[in-house]
Amino acid sequence: MLLCDIGNSRVKFYKGGVTQSMPVAEFMRYEPKERIFFISVNDSVKKKLKNPLFVDLASHFELKTAYRGLGIDRIAACSAVATGIVVDAGSAITVDLMFRGSHLGGFIMPGISTLLKSFASIAPVLDVTLSTNIDLDPLPQKTVSAVNYGILKPIVLTIENIAGNNKIYFTGGDGAYLMRYFRNSIYEKDLIFKSMVSLIAKKGLA
Amino acid sequence: MLLCDIGNSRVKFYKGGVTQSMPVAEFMRYEPKERIFFISVNDSVKKKLKNPLFVDLASHFELKTAYRGLGIDRIAACSAVATGIVVDAGSAITVDLMFRGSHLGGFIMPGISTLLKSFASIAPVLDVTLSTNIDLDPLPQKTVSAVNYGILKPIVLTIENIAGNNKIYFTGGDGAYLMRYFRNSIYEKDLIFKSMVSLIAKKGLA
Repeated sequence: MLLCDIGNSRVKFYKGGVTQSMPVAEFMRYEPKERIFFISVNDSVKKKLKNPLFVDLASHFELKTAYRGLGIDRIAACSAVATGIVVDAGSAITVDLMFRGSHLGGFIMPGISTLLKSFASIAPVLDVTLSTNIDLDPLPQKTVSAVNYGILKPIVLTIENIAGNNKIYFTGGDGAYLMRYFRNSIYEKDLIFKSMVSLIAKKGLA
Repeated sequence: MLLCDIGNSRVKFYKGGVTQSMPVAEFMRYEPKERIFFISVNDSVKKKLKNPLFVDLASHFELKTAYRGLGIDRIAACSAVATGIVVDAGSAITVDLMFRGSHLGGFIMPGISTLLKSFASIAPVLDVTLSTNIDLDPLPQKTVSAVNYGILKPIVLTIENIAGNNKIYFTGGDGAYLMRYFRNSIYEKDLIFKSMVSLIAKKGLA
């Protein structure tokens, strides 16, 4: 069974526990040879998905929420968590609060790579790289630390603020990096794909 | 007495309490007709400043700090505050902690306009404008609120975190907007220019 998660910059595939990804431009030249269950937040690939081998899972998810316009990737990730915080950390960082199977709301921050790019756009001196180990306790005493702190501290405080004592489920490219800054956290690399697998089984779609 | 604060995107002038500004490109064609006391964080205008009518104030500031590479605009703003938090909110938001005349450290976040641009770069659906009144208490229930929250809440929490009970001095284009989210805060539109005026008087430079 082949699964596909289509984002704004990359398209991820999942088969038998193995993930592969390609840029959206490459996906536009990709020809499916078997049935592919997909979710997509990317309107620009709509035409591509008209091939009947592509099966859209969007309408099968049934997440309880008052949120208007919740991305299908967030719906999928949240559907895998009954109670807790769901953080998908990629080019954007989406943060959602789940309580007993209901989605109570959420917000979106720019992702780490996006923030690094935005610093570089402000001034050459702010064009730095992220350090692998950033201590968020002492106040920074040089520019590289000041930018690193200015990227990570706001993300950490804002997720902590919504999380309280709830468990935090991280996924996405920067999830493993970010989770180290939280006590009650786990990293589920394939949270979205696991949710798709479970939906397909539950609805008997395969 | 004409003062000038040269940033990365704009150049601000100050005379008799009145401020004017122009883009850096326009400043490159500007010809001084009187002595101008300036500070500059913009290396690209160095040649322009060789005209002897430009007087660099940088070497006259004497801020106690262990921070390496503190921008002269931050040095100027901090020099005007003995104890408190100094927040300069422009294309970047610099946050510095002053205690009894000493600078204890600080950090840099992307500014509100920079964050809005970075959201727009991630996905078309995230290309929104900032609402004039954002309630940061309820969890967002739609995309515009989710982005607005994701811009403001991290900034507010991170400044609160460093501020504690200290007074917060806001300056910069977004300072007046941001200060409303803090209890013990004031907006000093011309904090940097006031600091330059006071330095010039103290050192007898005029």
